[in-house]
Amino acid sequence: MSEICLAGTGGMLPLKNRFLTSLYAEYNGKAILIDCGECTQVALAQHGIKISRIEIILITHSHADHITGLPGLLLSIGNCSRTEPLDIYVPDSAEKMIRNLISVCGQLPYEVNIHTLPDDIPTTFTADKVDSMLTVSTLPLVHSVNCIGYRLTQAKKPVFAPDRAKSLEIPVKYWKVLHSGGTVTLDDGRTFKPSDVVKENRPPVTVTYVTDTLPIPSIVDFARGSDLLICEGMYGDLSKKQSMNDKGHMLMQDACIIAKDADVKKLWLTHYSPAESEPETYYDTLHEIFPEVTISHDGEKTVL
Amino acid sequence: MSEICLAGTGGMLPLKNRFLTSLYAEYNGKAILIDCGECTQVALAQHGIKISRIEIILITHSHADHITGLPGLLLSIGNCSRTEPLDIYVPDSAEKMIRNLISVCGQLPYEVNIHTLPDDIPTTFTADKVDSMLTVSTLPLVHSVNCIGYRLTQAKKPVFAPDRAKSLEIPVKYWKVLHSGGTVTLDDGRTFKPSDVVKENRPPVTVTYVTDTLPIPSIVDFARGSDLLICEGMYGDLSKKQSMNDKGHMLMQDACIIAKDADVKKLWLTHYSPAESEPETYYDTLHEIFPEVTISHDGEKTVL
Repeated sequence: MSEICLAGTGGMLPLKNRFLTSLYAEYNGKAILIDCGECTQVALAQHGIKISRIEIILITHSHADHITGLPGLLLSIGNCSRTEPLDIYVPDSAEKMIRNLISVCGQLPYEVNIHTLPDDIPTTFTADKVDSMLTVSTLPLVHSVNCIGYRLTQAKKPVFAPDRAKSLEIPVKYWKVLHSGGTVTLDDGRTFKPSDVVKENRPPVTVTYVTDTLPIPSIVDFARGSDLLICEGMYGDLSKKQSMNDKGHMLMQDACIIAKDADVKKLWLTHYSPAESEPETYYDTLHEIFPEVTISHDGEKTVL
Repeated sequence: MSEICLAGTGGMLPLKNRFLTSLYAEYNGKAILIDCGECTQVALAQHGIKISRIEIILITHSHADHITGLPGLLLSIGNCSRTEPLDIYVPDSAEKMIRNLISVCGQLPYEVNIHTLPDDIPTTFTADKVDSMLTVSTLPLVHSVNCIGYRLTQAKKPVFAPDRAKSLEIPVKYWKVLHSGGTVTLDDGRTFKPSDVVKENRPPVTVTYVTDTLPIPSIVDFARGSDLLICEGMYGDLSKKQSMNDKGHMLMQDACIIAKDADVKKLWLTHYSPAESEPETYYDTLHEIFPEVTISHDGEKTVL
């Protein structure tokens, strides 16, 4: 089970009524945070989130509105008595900037491991510090600096069939092993494998996070079939399209078209321009393109 | 005239109901900001302050809760179409950290001039970018890193006496010159100096800002006679005194004793520990030591 909270929905600068875009995804008590602009720790606190649960921070790119909350958050996590290492994943090109930035923290009571991710080719790694069945995939995006999108995929165990296990007279103490993918040999010599005691497979739960970027075609494949796509939409005003694209951003309408083409279940828009004070204005237009669109507000939550 | 706003009153980390300590002082439309922790720009916006008026930023020390809002603030000031240079004054020892930090901003549309101030000896300079009659004095404090206090002194023109000017038959067009300290020679050969047309001198208006530090005796002389002393008070609980002092901080009671000894007109407490959720609890005790104490809240304002 994952608990998702979009802590903020703004782009460029934090406003008094809208913090910067940052995603908190918790998997059974351990969490990933994507991006950490100024005030993200305050946004998290406002939405009742315990920062002590954050094990991994993923950074999309080096722009200030996605990273300058890092020193404060790391220090505050230190105040929560953390001593275990914390992992931060950053695009290759952002590493120096991030190291400079967090040097402000001085000596933390825990280790910060910075891992770099390729800017130019997709990659995938397991986020087993958070959940052994969770993988993170990346996609190079197209912005004014190198930027990457993230896809969080939590595999699900297949459905267990206790009736089959009972009929096979497998003692209950072995059920968990078999359900988790292990093989069991009983004292009577019989051997069982998972397929003996599970029913249908369950699809993974996927959350895709894409900001800041042009609406490039590769996002469609990357986001395909996601349970939730969180995607930037700087403006809803079509007249802004060219100037947005020039800056490496997309419109809300672009995000809806991607969501539709990628056949995602839900789309949450985010990263609104500070000049876009009422993104709800565009609801009817956006809903027509992709009915499952949410014009997110800070603190948008769901359980997947 | 100066308009003072204590944008935040917290120490260590920004809370959902208390931002970090930062002082905004505006003199006839141009302003000084002292310290800029995470979320300071949001605090300023909440209190209706126009960041475009900031000409000078003074930094007390390099701890994150006093500086990590700088990149975001500088970028936001850039979004206000600023093109004139902006001055930041920092203690010598904080320069590298500040330069690292603001490198996150990339290319700003205006120049940022970083001036260093000695960590270990007091100094004074004129803040004429803000007001030609405004000076800034510093005091080395005692904290876990080098830290300095600031005293803002706005000199006042003496009171003009139009009856004297009239009786001397000085044309009105020369009054401003004389009031501003100039000497005037009329066509008829008579020469006048300011003392011919002014009455009593007016005392300067002074605001002193002191955080983070042990309650060292030199603060008393530094703050002496201030119209307003803004001073840290991490805790009101006397049992915290030793642990506070070990970290280079003081109690609210220490600040009240300094205010009393320095004979300041008013004291605003600030920089409360996140653990001090209700500083008002100590009002009676503090009022007994120094009756003109205010247990400040974010957005505390006055005009001096």
